[in-house]
Amino acid sequence: MSEGKLVYRFHEGSADLRDLLGGKGANLCEMARLGLPVPPGFVITTEACLRYYEDGRRLPEGLWPAVRDHVREIEAAAGRSFGVADNPLLLSVRSGARFSMPGMMDTVLNLGLNDETAAGLARRTGDERFALDSYRRFIQLFGKVVLKVPGGAFEEALTDARRRAGVESDAELGDAGLRRLVESFKGMAREHSDSPFPEDAWEQLRSAVEAVFDSWDNPRAIAYRDHHRISHSLGTAVNVQAMVFGNAGWDCATGVAFSRNPATGARELYGEYLANAQGEDVVSGARTPKLIKELADEFPEAYRQLGATADRLERHYRDVQDMEFTIERRRLYVLQTRVAKRSALAAVKTAVEMVHEGLIDQRQALLRVPAGELAQLLLPRFNERAKKQALRQGRLLARGLNASPGAASGRVVFDAARAVAIAEEGDPAVLVRPETSADDVHGIIRAAAVLTSRGGVTSHAAVVTRGLGKPAVVGCEALRVDPASRHLSVNGHVVREGDEISVDGFTGEVFTGRIDTIAPDISGNGELVELLAWADGARRLGVRANADTPADARLALAYGAEGVGLCRTEHMFFQPERLPLVRQALLSARAASELERRVEEGREAVTQAEGPARGEAEQRLRAAEEELDHSHEWHAYRHALERLEAYQREDFAAILRVMEGRPVVIRLLDAPLHEFLPPYQSLLQDVAAMRASDPDAPALPEKERLLEAARELHEANPMLGHRGCRLGLTYPDIYDIQVRAILEAACDLQAEGADVRPEIMIPMVVDASELHAIKAHLERVAAEVMASSGREVRTRFGTMIEVPRAALAAGELAPEVAFFSFGSNDLTQMTFAFSRDDAEEKFLRYYLRRGLLPANPFNSLDEKGVGRLIRIAVEEGRAANPELELGLCGEHGGDPESVSLCHRLGLDYVSCSPHRLPVARLAAAQAALGEAERLDV
Amino acid sequence: MSEGKLVYRFHEGSADLRDLLGGKGANLCEMARLGLPVPPGFVITTEACLRYYEDGRRLPEGLWPAVRDHVREIEAAAGRSFGVADNPLLLSVRSGARFSMPGMMDTVLNLGLNDETAAGLARRTGDERFALDSYRRFIQLFGKVVLKVPGGAFEEALTDARRRAGVESDAELGDAGLRRLVESFKGMAREHSDSPFPEDAWEQLRSAVEAVFDSWDNPRAIAYRDHHRISHSLGTAVNVQAMVFGNAGWDCATGVAFSRNPATGARELYGEYLANAQGEDVVSGARTPKLIKELADEFPEAYRQLGATADRLERHYRDVQDMEFTIERRRLYVLQTRVAKRSALAAVKTAVEMVHEGLIDQRQALLRVPAGELAQLLLPRFNERAKKQALRQGRLLARGLNASPGAASGRVVFDAARAVAIAEEGDPAVLVRPETSADDVHGIIRAAAVLTSRGGVTSHAAVVTRGLGKPAVVGCEALRVDPASRHLSVNGHVVREGDEISVDGFTGEVFTGRIDTIAPDISGNGELVELLAWADGARRLGVRANADTPADARLALAYGAEGVGLCRTEHMFFQPERLPLVRQALLSARAASELERRVEEGREAVTQAEGPARGEAEQRLRAAEEELDHSHEWHAYRHALERLEAYQREDFAAILRVMEGRPVVIRLLDAPLHEFLPPYQSLLQDVAAMRASDPDAPALPEKERLLEAARELHEANPMLGHRGCRLGLTYPDIYDIQVRAILEAACDLQAEGADVRPEIMIPMVVDASELHAIKAHLERVAAEVMASSGREVRTRFGTMIEVPRAALAAGELAPEVAFFSFGSNDLTQMTFAFSRDDAEEKFLRYYLRRGLLPANPFNSLDEKGVGRLIRIAVEEGRAANPELELGLCGEHGGDPESVSLCHRLGLDYVSCSPHRLPVARLAAAQAALGEAERLDV
Repeated sequence: MSEGKLVYRFHEGSADLRDLLGGKGANLCEMARLGLPVPPGFVITTEACLRYYEDGRRLPEGLWPAVRDHVREIEAAAGRSFGVADNPLLLSVRSGARFSMPGMMDTVLNLGLNDETAAGLARRTGDERFALDSYRRFIQLFGKVVLKVPGGAFEEALTDARRRAGVESDAELGDAGLRRLVESFKGMAREHSDSPFPEDAWEQLRSAVEAVFDSWDNPRAIAYRDHHRISHSLGTAVNVQAMVFGNAGWDCATGVAFSRNPATGARELYGEYLANAQGEDVVSGARTPKLIKELADEFPEAYRQLGATADRLERHYRDVQDMEFTIERRRLYVLQTRVAKRSALAAVKTAVEMVHEGLIDQRQALLRVPAGELAQLLLPRFNERAKKQALRQGRLLARGLNASPGAASGRVVFDAARAVAIAEEGDPAVLVRPETSADDVHGIIRAAAVLTSRGGVTSHAAVVTRGLGKPAVVGCEALRVDPASRHLSVNGHVVREGDEISVDGFTGEVFTGRIDTIAPDISGNGELVELLAWADGARRLGVRANADTPADARLALAYGAEGVGLCRTEHMFFQPERLPLVRQALLSARAASELERRVEEGREAVTQAEGPARGEAEQRLRAAEEELDHSHEWHAYRHALERLEAYQREDFAAILRVMEGRPVVIRLLDAPLHEFLPPYQSLLQDVAAMRASDPDAPALPEKERLLEAARELHEANPMLGHRGCRLGLTYPDIYDIQVRAILEAACDLQAEGADVRPEIMIPMVVDASELHAIKAHLERVAAEVMASSGREVRTRFGTMIEVPRAALAAGELAPEVAFFSFGSNDLTQMTFAFSRDDAEEKFLRYYLRRGLLPANPFNSLDEKGVGRLIRIAVEEGRAANPELELGLCGEHGGDPESVSLCHRLGLDYVSCSPHRLPVARLAAAQAALGEAERLDV
Repeated sequence: MSEGKLVYRFHEGSADLRDLLGGKGANLCEMARLGLPVPPGFVITTEACLRYYEDGRRLPEGLWPAVRDHVREIEAAAGRSFGVADNPLLLSVRSGARFSMPGMMDTVLNLGLNDETAAGLARRTGDERFALDSYRRFIQLFGKVVLKVPGGAFEEALTDARRRAGVESDAELGDAGLRRLVESFKGMAREHSDSPFPEDAWEQLRSAVEAVFDSWDNPRAIAYRDHHRISHSLGTAVNVQAMVFGNAGWDCATGVAFSRNPATGARELYGEYLANAQGEDVVSGARTPKLIKELADEFPEAYRQLGATADRLERHYRDVQDMEFTIERRRLYVLQTRVAKRSALAAVKTAVEMVHEGLIDQRQALLRVPAGELAQLLLPRFNERAKKQALRQGRLLARGLNASPGAASGRVVFDAARAVAIAEEGDPAVLVRPETSADDVHGIIRAAAVLTSRGGVTSHAAVVTRGLGKPAVVGCEALRVDPASRHLSVNGHVVREGDEISVDGFTGEVFTGRIDTIAPDISGNGELVELLAWADGARRLGVRANADTPADARLALAYGAEGVGLCRTEHMFFQPERLPLVRQALLSARAASELERRVEEGREAVTQAEGPARGEAEQRLRAAEEELDHSHEWHAYRHALERLEAYQREDFAAILRVMEGRPVVIRLLDAPLHEFLPPYQSLLQDVAAMRASDPDAPALPEKERLLEAARELHEANPMLGHRGCRLGLTYPDIYDIQVRAILEAACDLQAEGADVRPEIMIPMVVDASELHAIKAHLERVAAEVMASSGREVRTRFGTMIEVPRAALAAGELAPEVAFFSFGSNDLTQMTFAFSRDDAEEKFLRYYLRRGLLPANPFNSLDEKGVGRLIRIAVEEGRAANPELELGLCGEHGGDPESVSLCHRLGLDYVSCSPHRLPVARLAAAQAALGEAERLDV
C-alpha cells in the first residue's frame, strides 16, 4: 500500500477521487469547490481504512495527528472550539464508501458534547432544549455505534418519555423530559460498556472514526455487498464535518431533496423535510415529514436557494441529484449530494428528457437506464375493473404514500423471517411493518410488496423497494401495526398474519383480499418508446419473442419483436378440445401401427414374390388390408391425427399471419408423450383404490388403459428421456402431421398473397446422423405438401442446441441446417445436472444462500459452463457453415447479463417472452455500446 | 479409379496385395509362390468389383477378355478344356474380400457343367455317380446364387431323395436318385427364372462372376459389415480356380485343418474332414465329419503332407492357420489358408507359445490377442458342486461337441426371432437349432448359448459363437430338434420352448434346468499370466478395480489391480441389517435436525445475550436441550447414524486391509436418498388400496410415514437431482459419518502397522466453491478423528467428474484436489441427455439399429462428445495442478476401445470391474504399443 495522503480537506478533493474519498466525500469536496454552502470539513481516505485493517484495526501512523490538524482548521473556519465548553464546535462523523450502501454503515452526529460543552452550547445559543436534544441524540448514536448498546433500549426509553409527556413526537419533548433522557441514556451506556461515558471530545472523535472503519466489516454490510456484488476490499472513507443544526428551533429544518421526481421522473424539486429535527428523523420515518413544496411557504429563501442548488448540481453532474440539506436559523446548508436512485419509469423519463435538454447524448441515456428494471414498466397493475369492484365491496383498507410502483396481492407477514418462510413456500407475502430498517432487507427482497405505517417517500422502505422494483405503500398512518400480536388494525378492522391484502404502489391504496393484476401497455409511454428506438439503432443483436399463440405474437409485435424465435407447439395439444384426441391417438398408436406395419410388409412381400408365392402373398396382403380397414382402433387413430393436424394448421396460420414478413421459428413437439396423460402416480392410486374398494366391480377399461399407457410411457428421468426428435424418429406420425400443418398453413397464406416465413426447429438433437435422418424425412413431407398445393414456400430447417453433446458436435450439425437456437433452459439442466423441477427447492436455494454458485444459472446464463458450450457451438458451427444463423430462446433471453453474454458470444439474436422484450432490446444496445466503449480504450 | 490390372494369376500375386486381391486371393497367390499344392487359378481384383458398381453393375471394360485369357491358362495347366464335353475343366468361383466375412457372400463350385460336359466327366472318370453328384451340386449352388432360387426348395428335394432312398447322407445316394435330383433341380431353376438353365459354360462363368460381385451388396453382407464396422466401399475380389474333387469317390475327401487347436491353443493339427464330399458338406454341418487325426489312418500320405503344409504356412505367416483342403484320389490340394479365428484361450496360448518358439516377439503377441476377448476367459463356468448335483439328479440331457467355451442356463427357443424376443424381456435364451446359418446370426448374438444337433467344431454355429464368446455345444446328435412343433426330445424326454436348460461349452454337456455359474480363476492359466505380465511391462496406463466389498477387492488383486479406483458406498447402506437403520435415520432426520437447530440457536443466543436477557436465553436453551434429550426421534436418529458409522468402519477396514499399500478411492454416497425407501409408486398404491379397502381401519403409521418420506424425497428427474455432494452439503451428517468411518478404520489399521491409503472422492461436483466448501468441512472432520486417535493418515481428497459443468470448470476444480476420476457412465447420461434406465428400451436400440449412432455410448466411450469433455478437463486440470492424478471409473474402463481412448487422452489409470481387469491391462498395453507404432512411422 502506498504511503499516500490520508486526509483531504474538502477544498483539496474532487468528484474524480471517489475511490479514495468515497462517494459522499468526493461529492462534498466537489460541492465545496463549486462554492456551494457546505459546512467545513475533511475526508479520511479509504486507504486509511484499508491500512487500519492491515494493521489489525489500528489507526495508521500519522493519521491521528493529521486529523487533529484538520479539526483545528474547522475550528478556525467555524469560529468555534472542539471540546471547549465556551462556544463548542460539534462534529458529524459519517461513513462514505465508493459505492452507496444506504444504512449499512455507521455515523455519529453531534460529537464533542459532554456535560460541560452541552451546558456551554445551551449558554451560547440560549436554547437549553436544543442543547439537551443534541446531547441525547449524541449519546444515543454514540452509544449504539461506538459502545454497541442495543438500539432498542434507547428507543424504548424515548417512547416511554413521549408517553409520560403525553406528546407524539420527540420534537415536542420539553427540557425536563430531555434532561431525564440524557441521564438515563448515559446510564444505559455506562451499564453496557462497564465504564463511564467518554467525556473527552478527542477520545470521542477517535473512537467514532474507528467505529466507522469497523462498520465496513459488520455482517449487515458484508451481506449487502454480497447481494450487490460489491468488492469487500474497497474500505470506507470517513467524513468529518462541522455540525449544522436542523434541530435548533422552529426556524431550523432538515430534509432530503431530489432535483427531479424519483418516482415519476417529472422535472420538479421533490422531497420532504422536518422542521426542528435532525436528518435521521426524516430518513427513519419516525415522524412523517412535510412535502418539499411546503418549504416554499415556511422557508422561502432557503427554498429558492435549494432549487438553484439542485439545478446547478444537476447541470454539473448531468444527472438527477439526491441531496441532504439542513436549514439552520433559515440558512441553507447542503450536507450531501449523490446520483438519485429512481424508479424505472423515472429513469427512462429523465434519461430521454435530458437528451432533449442537451445535458447528455443518446448513448449516455441508453447506458444510464438499468435494462433489467424496464421489466418494472411492464409490472402488473391491478385490473381496473377488479379494483373498482373491490372499492364497491368496501375492501379499501387504507391509503398511504405511493412509494414504489407496481401492484401485488399476498399474505400479510409481520417480520422478515416470516416473509422468507412464506416466499419459500411459494406464496407471495406482503411485509407489513411500522417502519423498516436494514434488518428487514432480506425479507423485503423476498416479499411481493411492502406496507409501512410510518415513513415517507424517502424512508428506508421506499428506497429499498424502488431499487428492487416491487410495490410499496409507506406512511399509511391509519394502520395500527402490532407485530407482537401478529395483526394490524384500521379503525377496528383487524387483519391477521396470513390474511391476504393487496398493495397498489401506483396509487398508495391498500385493499383487503386479492385483486387480479394485468400487464400494462407500453405504447402510452412516449419516452420509453423513444429510448427503445434509440436502443434498436444501437444494438447489433436481433430480438425475437417466444410466442405460442396469436395473442402472444401480437403482444410481441407491440413490444418490438423482429420475429418469433420460439413457438412451442406443446400447448396446441393441451387445449381442452384437443387433449382427448391426443389421448385417443396415444392409446391406439401401438395397435394402429402394428396393423400398418403388417400391410406394409404384405406389400413388400408381393413385390418380391414370384410364381405361385405371389398369389399367396397377395392373399395375405388383402387379409392385412381388410383387418386394418375393419379396425376401430386404426380408424380412431387416423381420425385423431387428422383432427389434430387440422387444429394445428389453424394455429400456425394464425401466428404466421400476425407475424407476416417476419421469421417464425416453430419447434416440433419437444415434450415427452406421458405429459399428455393424467399423472402416472394419480392413475396408480386411482386404480389401486378402485380395485381394493370393490374387487368384484367390472373392470374400468378407460382408467386401466390410461394406466397401462402411462406405465408404458413412464420414465425414470423424463428430462433425459424419450422426447424431442427421439419421438420424432420413433413415432414419425407426430412430426409428420406437424410439418404438414405448417406447410399447409403456409401454402394457404401464400395463396392469399401473404409473405410467410416458417422455420422448422428440430429439438433434442445429439448427433449429425440423427439430424440428417429426421430432416431428410421431414423435407420429403414438406415437399409432398408443396407439390400437392402447387406452391413453393421458403421453409428453413434448424436445430435446437439444448443437449451438451449437440454443442460439442456443432461442427457436424451446422452443415445440415440453416440455424441453431440455443435452448439454454435445458442446456443448463444437462450441463449442471440440475433438474429444474426439483433443484430450487431441494438444494439450489441452499447453494445460492451459501454463495456456492454466483447466481441461479436458470436466471443468469452460466458463462463458465453453459456459455462455454455455446461458444464452442458458435465457433465450430460458423466455421462449418458460415451462413448459419444463431439464436438463443431460453428464458435467459430476457436477462440483461445473459443478453450481454449472448452479444459477446456473437449470436445473431435472442428470443424472450414478450414482456421481457424491452429489457432485451435495451440490454442488447448496452452490450453493443459497452463493447464500443471497450474498443475505444 | 486408376486403370490398373484387373486380373492376377496366382503366381503374380502375393500376400501383400490383400486390398486388391482380397484375403483369400492374396493367400492363394502366396501359397502358389511357396510351391504348395494349389490348383491353378486367378484372381479378379476388388478394383474390378468397385468399377462394376461404378458402371451400374456392368463388368468393366477389358475384364471379360482378360478372364477368358486366364481361363485358357488354367486349361493349359490342368490339361482340360472349359465347356468341352471331352475332359471338361470345371471351375470354382469364390468371393474373397479384404476382411473375412464368413458365409456372407457367394460362391459357385463345379462351374462348367451341363448335360454334355457332365456326361463327358462321367465318361472320362468312369464314375457316373461323381459326375451326377457334381452336377446336382452345381445346379443347386448356381440356382441359388445366380438364379436366386430360394435355397429351401433344393434342400427339401434332397431330404425327400434321402428319405426315398432310405439313406442318412447325400453321399449314400445312388445314381438313379442323383439323376432324378438333377432333373428336378433343373426344373426348379427353370421355373424360378422363367428361362432354361444356362448350358453355356462361359455364360455360366460370366453370370457367376457378376453374382459374386452382387453379393458384396446383399443385405446380409451389409448387416455383417455394419456389425463389424467394416467399410462398405472395399468391394470383393473373385477367385477363379480349377476344381479339384473331394467327392470323386471314397479315395477322395475334403476338410478343414488348423495348424493348432483353435479352441484350446494346443500345438496339434486339428480339424475335420469328410470322405467323398465337397467342402460345403463339412462347413454346413449336414454330415458330422471325422476328426482330422483319423485322416492319419485313412489317408496317411495326405495327412503327413497336410501336417508339413500347416507347419510351413505357420512359419511363413507366423500365425495359426486355418486351411481348406481337398484330397482328390489321395492327392492333397490346399484351397485356402487364413489366420485362424480362435477362442480367447487359444489366442493367449498360441501367442505366448509362439514367443517361446521364437516365431514372434512379445510385442506381436500382445497386439495379436483381441483384448476384449480376454473377458471370455473369465466367463462363468458352472459351479462344480451344482453340476455334480445335476448329474446325480439325472438332469444330464445329452453330450455334444464343446464348440465354444463358457457356460450358461436359459430358456429354450427354436428360432432367432424368439431368441431376440426373450432377450429383450431380459431373460437369457438358449437357441436350439438342427444347424445354424447366416439367417440365425441376429438370434445367436442375443442368445446366452447355442445348441445344435448337427455340425462339427467348424460348423457355422461353432465359428460364430466362438467369435462372440458365448457357449455352444454342437453336433449333439442324440437331440431330435423340431422347431415347427416347438420342442426337442432326447430318448423320449421332451423339452418345450420356454423350458430351462444349461449348456456347458467347456465340456459339451447339456442339462435340463438351471445350474449356478461361477467366475473362473485365471491364476491357473500360465500363458495368460505371462501375457498379462508382458502387458503390464508395456502399458503406461494404470489399472485399478471397481470394488465395493473385500471379496471384490481380493478378486481385483488376483486379477492384477493396482488399487481400488472406485469403492461405491451405496451397497453398504443397502445390506439387509442396515437398511432399517437408514430408513430410521431418514424418517427421523427432519425432526432431529430441527431439535438440534433449536439447541444450536439457544447456545448462540446465550453467548450474545447480556444482563437479564441472558437468564431468559439460558432458560430457553435448557428447555431446548431437555426437549431434545426427551425426544425419541432424536435418539433414534443418532443411534441409527452411530450404528451405520460402525458398520461402515468395519467395511472400510476390511477393504483397506486387503488393499494394503495400494490406493483405495472411496466415493462418498452418490445415490439419492429415496433409493433407500420402498419405491414411491408401490407405496402410493399400497396406501391408496389400504385406505380404499377399509376407510375406518386405524391408520398404519409405518406405511404412511414411509409414503410421506418418499413423497418428500420424490424427484421428477432423480438423475439430475439431490444426490452426491448436494446431499453431502444439505444433509452433512451422511458424509460426516462416512468420513469418520474411513478415518477411524485407517487410524486403527495404521496402529496395527498397516500401510493404508484411503482416498476420498466427492461426487456430483459442478463448481469449485461447492467443492471447496465440502472439502474444507470434511477435512475438519478427518482432522478431528486423527486428533482424537493421535495418528496421521495420509488421506487425499478428489472429485468425480461426472457432470459436464465439472469438466468445463476443471481448471478451477483441479487446485482443490489431488485427483479427478471421470464417472463416464453419468457423464455420458448428461452429455447425451440419455437416461440409462430408459434410453435403451425407448429409443437407443432403434438408434443403433438405424445407425444413427456409431455405437452404444454406454458401452464404448463417445470420443466426440464425452471424450471431448474429458480432454478439456485433462488439459485444463493438469495445467492448473500439474500433480493432479487422473482416472476413469465408469464401465468404459473395461472396454478396449475406451481404454485406448483413455490412453490417448493421457489419463493416469482406468478402473473397471474385477473380471474386466485382464481386458483393461491388455488393452492398455495395446494402446501404448499402437502409439509407439504410430510414432515409429
